[in-house]
Amino acid sequence: MPLPEEFREIAGRVNNWGRWGADDEIGTLNLITDGVVREAASCVRTGRRIPLALPLRRGGVQTGLIPGRVDPLHVMTQINREVFGPGTVACSDDAVTMGLQAATHWDALAHVSHSGLLYNGRPAGTVTAHDGAGFGGIGTVRHLVSRGVLLDVARVRGVDRLDGGRAVTPEDLDAAEELAGTRVRAGDVALVRTGQIRVLLGGDREGYAYPSPGLSLRTPRWFHARDVAAVASDTLAFEVFPPEVAGLWLPVHALHLVEMGLLQGQNWNLEELSTACGETGRYTFLLSATPEPFTGATGSPVAPVALL
Amino acid sequence: MPLPEEFREIAGRVNNWGRWGADDEIGTLNLITDGVVREAASCVRTGRRIPLALPLRRGGVQTGLIPGRVDPLHVMTQINREVFGPGTVACSDDAVTMGLQAATHWDALAHVSHSGLLYNGRPAGTVTAHDGAGFGGIGTVRHLVSRGVLLDVARVRGVDRLDGGRAVTPEDLDAAEELAGTRVRAGDVALVRTGQIRVLLGGDREGYAYPSPGLSLRTPRWFHARDVAAVASDTLAFEVFPPEVAGLWLPVHALHLVEMGLLQGQNWNLEELSTACGETGRYTFLLSATPEPFTGATGSPVAPVALL
Amino acid sequence: MPLPEEFREIAGRVNNWGRWGADDEIGTLNLITDGVVREAASCVRTGRRIPLALPLRRGGVQTGLIPGRVDPLHVMTQINREVFGPGTVACSDDAVTMGLQAATHWDALAHVSHSGLLYNGRPAGTVTAHDGAGFGGIGTVRHLVSRGVLLDVARVRGVDRLDGGRAVTPEDLDAAEELAGTRVRAGDVALVRTGQIRVLLGGDREGYAYPSPGLSLRTPRWFHARDVAAVASDTLAFEVFPPEVAGLWLPVHALHLVEMGLLQGQNWNLEELSTACGETGRYTFLLSATPEPFTGATGSPVAPVALL
Amino acid sequence: MPLPEEFREIAGRVNNWGRWGADDEIGTLNLITDGVVREAASCVRTGRRIPLALPLRRGGVQTGLIPGRVDPLHVMTQINREVFGPGTVACSDDAVTMGLQAATHWDALAHVSHSGLLYNGRPAGTVTAHDGAGFGGIGTVRHLVSRGVLLDVARVRGVDRLDGGRAVTPEDLDAAEELAGTRVRAGDVALVRTGQIRVLLGGDREGYAYPSPGLSLRTPRWFHARDVAAVASDTLAFEVFPPEVAGLWLPVHALHLVEMGLLQGQNWNLEELSTACGETGRYTFLLSATPEPFTGATGSPVAPVALL
Repeated sequence: MPLPEEFREIAGRVNNWGRWGADDEIGTLNLITDGVVREAASCVRTGRRIPLALPLRRGGVQTGLIPGRVDPLHVMTQINREVFGPGTVACSDDAVTMGLQAATHWDALAHVSHSGLLYNGRPAGTVTAHDGAGFGGIGTVRHLVSRGVLLDVARVRGVDRLDGGRAVTPEDLDAAEELAGTRVRAGDVALVRTGQIRVLLGGDREGYAYPSPGLSLRTPRWFHARDVAAVASDTLAFEVFPPEVAGLWLPVHALHLVEMGLLQGQNWNLEELSTACGETGRYTFLLSATPEPFTGATGSPVAPVALL
Repeated sequence: MPLPEEFREIAGRVNNWGRWGADDEIGTLNLITDGVVREAASCVRTGRRIPLALPLRRGGVQTGLIPGRVDPLHVMTQINREVFGPGTVACSDDAVTMGLQAATHWDALAHVSHSGLLYNGRPAGTVTAHDGAGFGGIGTVRHLVSRGVLLDVARVRGVDRLDGGRAVTPEDLDAAEELAGTRVRAGDVALVRTGQIRVLLGGDREGYAYPSPGLSLRTPRWFHARDVAAVASDTLAFEVFPPEVAGLWLPVHALHLVEMGLLQGQNWNLEELSTACGETGRYTFLLSATPEPFTGATGSPVAPVALL
Repeated sequence: MPLPEEFREIAGRVNNWGRWGADDEIGTLNLITDGVVREAASCVRTGRRIPLALPLRRGGVQTGLIPGRVDPLHVMTQINREVFGPGTVACSDDAVTMGLQAATHWDALAHVSHSGLLYNGRPAGTVTAHDGAGFGGIGTVRHLVSRGVLLDVARVRGVDRLDGGRAVTPEDLDAAEELAGTRVRAGDVALVRTGQIRVLLGGDREGYAYPSPGLSLRTPRWFHARDVAAVASDTLAFEVFPPEVAGLWLPVHALHLVEMGLLQGQNWNLEELSTACGETGRYTFLLSATPEPFTGATGSPVAPVALL
Repeated sequence: MPLPEEFREIAGRVNNWGRWGADDEIGTLNLITDGVVREAASCVRTGRRIPLALPLRRGGVQTGLIPGRVDPLHVMTQINREVFGPGTVACSDDAVTMGLQAATHWDALAHVSHSGLLYNGRPAGTVTAHDGAGFGGIGTVRHLVSRGVLLDVARVRGVDRLDGGRAVTPEDLDAAEELAGTRVRAGDVALVRTGQIRVLLGGDREGYAYPSPGLSLRTPRWFHARDVAAVASDTLAFEVFPPEVAGLWLPVHALHLVEMGLLQGQNWNLEELSTACGETGRYTFLLSATPEPFTGATGSPVAPVALL
């Protein structure tokens, strides 16, 4: 089944292919200029730092539904081993096996393709078992630091969390932007809070996964108009689930990652940040959220920190 | 063989046990106050961002000498899979197995014990196969952002890299501090450049590992006097290898991690940063280097970024 | 809480420490002599081969209850890669991460200790994070082929499967032995069928795990009297769960692995074998069940085959 | 570059597609009938068992040349953990990450394709990152027990091991068959000894890998004429390396796995078996070599045992 006309129409409007050259692999991250970073640094007023990552551990986010996207299996490879003989200094070492998108993470542009193509019109076949993503992998992102803006949709709609299946609309984003008291600008990273992660923090992994509030098919045009550099949210699927249009699965993924070349973040814990922003009335900050530089990976865990 | 008197004497002078309470698990990171972070943010002048991590990939840093500290094995778990049926959006997913200290990383305080004890006098037995580090694990570090200072010892000594086996002394640090034109302050993160990573970048893993320049047994007192929050360097072993005192292996590890509660970073690529600082004459910056929050881990990969 | 007198009393009766020398690491497997194997070979009448292993795959046996005992995560590391250039022969390769006791497996003698000791009185501390089991690891078992005897308790009790929590008693084993029409002999491998694995095959992992029928605390004396070389069964926990004596957990494990030095097999699928034996009235066969020779491992997957 | 005419000509002669039906996934293993197994059992004369697997451990066979084909990384996930409280029975558990073809293993039929096709003419595209081998995976092999015949080419040629680069020819196989004093029959598993594994056992992994003696391009016709069920050898690459015809890489793999549907075994340690057969003058035995049933895998570790 080909993607419907509705999708094609939006895709045509938000497409960024070629905008930063035919060889570009980082898309809207190009919008984070030195000037944007200087502005971002000026958002640091109190020096308070708020971490946005979930702990990486067994018994994390995953329910087993997506094969291979496994919660971290952390193992010790040595424990207090006196490497150089009895009585010497002792070392402990460890290793991990995990799905790169198991917890708080960024999707690389190569994470999704449609109609056989990745961002910038590259063939989907550049992703291989042997080399991973030959184009648009997360390792091409050298740094990701910019101004962050919390778009606190749950707060502006007066709820702890949006209902499962509730689409976050452009109108919601307008309202949250108004609450934030700032205009979202080119190069900003937008953090969209639905409150859904409270379900996970309350211990209900299944309920967290589905049904879930999330971004509407109509929001990519909003982000494109603002020229944001990246968008992250506090849900598993990022976009609303079940989807708005029957049979049209993951349209926001396809629009962001393939058409726009815009990085998406999932499973970000925005609760402490929401409280802090609510208290101060300031919703902008320096956001430091560089992914781990896995060569050829289609995603990466990230430990984002907001500096207020 | 018990640790020698020389070690005991230094340990007594730099010990921080109890300084931040009996339950403290993060040691000198307590020195990064909101004020320090505000100062750090003011170091951002141009907005330039310099990444300090090595790529995470097969064929990385490890030679196989340390069992279990394996280079990342990155694997695809799905490739352009049309999850919801033919013609739908296609997803690629991946997973990784790796030693947590395989590449650019932080040692957690729990990484090393001596005489049966960890930092703050906790028993080494709190590290177990089942739970990992029950005390002083990397997951207790919620954020690590501060002022960074590059102590460019190779540059100040007029070489591309210090020779293998050359100890970096307090006098070297004094000279590098003078070159930096700033006094290292409480809460700063010191980045000590030896140039040794050029050997690795040139393709010689074995030569990178050994022999290596690195910190002298005498430097922990220097860092303690300045009250730095953490120290990272561009070598595999962090301290000079082979060691300065016959039979006294890893004394700097033991002094930093156990006695002082000071995080150590290894395999940081400081080459691009050195060039930038050399050009501008400014050696201070905002350093964002939060580890991935692995619960109970004795180390974590990190993707540090310097904002100049 | 020390182990109760009831346990100590049985332990004293079945203990095999020193029986095969102070350095012995394979316990009752010593009972499989060349003569036993010749007898076993003579059991092959029809040439029919029946596999007893569950498939190794995602979505296998594990529920996540035992951290680290993860179902196989099978990943492709290359797919139809023309390694030597376009048009050449193409190769596919793969890798796996799994708990060694995740599916059909043998427990090594080192799997369990009590009172600080392993089989043959060795200290439990010989198991380390760095080297695994320094004594009694599965890698010390070079081969495991013998006469197998199916003790079909479910069949002799007239049920498809024994109820959850039903202990298999010496009297059950007597009855099953009578049904088998043979006396269990020194060096035999006893396969005890409860039918419990039908719950798993029916799709109910949780119900398979608990509550479960399994061997009673009283059966080690029966196996000791017969001098069997090993025992395997078709349940997750091997012994009855919940246990017969309040607070006395895993007594059969401790008696078999520590006191007797007797290997245990779990999650063996005995259904097809049961049908075949029921049809022919012959319950003995050549059993080939050599574990994978993981050095220092406390268990290993096994693909047992019965030759009838 | 298309495969040369020489290859095509042999392929036409040995092709077994359709021989066991269009849906067959196990190829020549169909030749192991119940009658063959009865005959195999009659080869057990002394009851002696000889293991043919290398230990599974760090520091095994792999040199790092084939990415992803990693030596076993064995880790403890719990060590003497008193799961049910202090004083209770203590358990140790472990897990492993490894390339399925890292050590002593079977190649599944799906391991190799050429010209876009697998065995039985199935499309190579049935191998996917998500599901692994959808056709001809190792999990379709339910058991592998048959008569084994040692073809001791090194012995019959009067050397400890054949030189690196020396092709094993049909004439060598004839001579070894004569030494064995038996005619290789339909359903037999042929074990071809070159002695090359002595290089590995002597500690030289690189020298073991390359150059290597191995099967000539001309031997598949010999195995086809005998209708063997499978062939295993004591080298890394199975076939001679470097190859006999410039630019024709892995022709034996393609003929065996794709054209004939014949399983190949690599890295089998045939040294102890060679000694035993040399002493007794008997080169036939019951061979038990069932792979681990990994669903969708293109290979599997195996712990083969010869019963003499």
